[in-house]
Amino acid sequence: MDLNQELERVACLVEARLDALLAPEPAPSGQARLIEAMRYAALGGGKRLRPFLLIESARLFGVAEEGALDASAALECVHTYSLVHDDLPAMDDDAVRRGRPTAHIAFGEATAILAGDALLTLAFEILSRPSTHPDASVRVELIGLLAQAAGVGGMVGGQALDLAAEGQRIGPMEVARMQAMKTGALFAFACDAGAVLGRADDVAREALAAYAAAFGQAFQLADDLLDAEGDEAAVGKAVAKDAGRGKATLVALLGIEPARARLKALVEDAEAALAPFGNRGATLKDAARFIASRRA
Amino acid sequence: MDLNQELERVACLVEARLDALLAPEPAPSGQARLIEAMRYAALGGGKRLRPFLLIESARLFGVAEEGALDASAALECVHTYSLVHDDLPAMDDDAVRRGRPTAHIAFGEATAILAGDALLTLAFEILSRPSTHPDASVRVELIGLLAQAAGVGGMVGGQALDLAAEGQRIGPMEVARMQAMKTGALFAFACDAGAVLGRADDVAREALAAYAAAFGQAFQLADDLLDAEGDEAAVGKAVAKDAGRGKATLVALLGIEPARARLKALVEDAEAALAPFGNRGATLKDAARFIASRRA
Repeated sequence: MDLNQELERVACLVEARLDALLAPEPAPSGQARLIEAMRYAALGGGKRLRPFLLIESARLFGVAEEGALDASAALECVHTYSLVHDDLPAMDDDAVRRGRPTAHIAFGEATAILAGDALLTLAFEILSRPSTHPDASVRVELIGLLAQAAGVGGMVGGQALDLAAEGQRIGPMEVARMQAMKTGALFAFACDAGAVLGRADDVAREALAAYAAAFGQAFQLADDLLDAEGDEAAVGKAVAKDAGRGKATLVALLGIEPARARLKALVEDAEAALAPFGNRGATLKDAARFIASRRA
Repeated sequence: MDLNQELERVACLVEARLDALLAPEPAPSGQARLIEAMRYAALGGGKRLRPFLLIESARLFGVAEEGALDASAALECVHTYSLVHDDLPAMDDDAVRRGRPTAHIAFGEATAILAGDALLTLAFEILSRPSTHPDASVRVELIGLLAQAAGVGGMVGGQALDLAAEGQRIGPMEVARMQAMKTGALFAFACDAGAVLGRADDVAREALAAYAAAFGQAFQLADDLLDAEGDEAAVGKAVAKDAGRGKATLVALLGIEPARARLKALVEDAEAALAPFGNRGATLKDAARFIASRRA
């Protein structure tokens, strides 16, 4: 199986589900514009890596794609809201995302703030519905895990650490902690949510958690390497931003070659963590190699 | 029973629960500052009207206060986040709230945006916990209802309508629709959540829904009257803002005396809706009269 084709196939499924969940409805113009901004942000393409991890993790435990699509869409709503808010002028002040104007450039700052708020809220609404899973106790477990991953002890806390670190000298441990919260927590949720949907046992959940931790770090390192070395046209957003802003990254702290060696080791860690799943783990292993070698 | 004393007593309970749920923890400074901003916004006093309605509604069905406190705290987190985001420069651009600097003045815009995001996320985390209700199906129902009340079809959608209406000529129907979403939806959730916690039947839920609809409109009308006539020192925030911004309010459209008459009728509607509960509805009736007569 070609991983690129498989990623594209799953991305199409997720895009279609998000499109349905965010269907425009007859509404007064202010509300219609808000929905338009949510759709602009959520349906702008993207690799849908987090949904892919969720769906592939669930598949390990016999859950069909259809049974993991709503949870995947909810997760992507949270990821999308975080991009919309992080791009705001008061935050990272980015004008381009996925090769298009960011939401606040396209719709204005107020609408972008509200669209982010609404996408975060929608994520929990989706998870609360029986279509996510027939068992309420599974749904409520997913909701608790997503809230923890996205909240002050996870993604939002990591973004606060990142903002506080700008222009400061911080070491590799602090950078790793910040990144584990800011980007790692949602990858960890993706894999764990698949396990929860499939009612996996604790041993399997821990194996997947180890995979997700290595995957998340590898993803971030590859992203930082792209920023340090990449080509803006291929990446679809401004590059070399981190250095310009004095942002702490492991690439800046370690140097490019040691960072590449670390990336290779993380991919090996991710692959090793999947050993308990035997051949069934092949796609997730491919995914770890894929994100480490991406050029955009 | 004196309603003022009862409101103060419940506000203290809610404040204490929020204080415990937002306990500061040892964390790197950026994250600690985020928690500080969440505490600043959530623990700044406030009348805790929504928690009061939730607790009193739950009491109608035999739920003890303790059994409704976590759901009340979650609701107050959502209300608080909405104030933090609405006060932002890109939104209503308010510098004073409850007699203190708003969160973005005190902590900067980036931290205020993140604190709002984190409070919204925390609300759903609280509702997912068994301490909110032992039955997962009750918790997941509360989560779905809160997400609907807070989302694009409720509070956030209402804020989008409000922003779009600034400087526009809109009629009383549009104003009522906007306010039903922007402020009415959370009051409606408060009463319905009490009913869900108490496993009320549909007839009781509909009676409470009628009460909440009248209460919400009365609250907004009283608020607009305070803005039109009030004293800034007593109200604790800038007054006469609505007229200055060309914001559409029912008071501006109807005139002050007709607005007062409408307020009186709404309080009567709220009281009438509680008829099925007999004497047990006395406190909620008092609450409707209280908000209509408040001067701050």
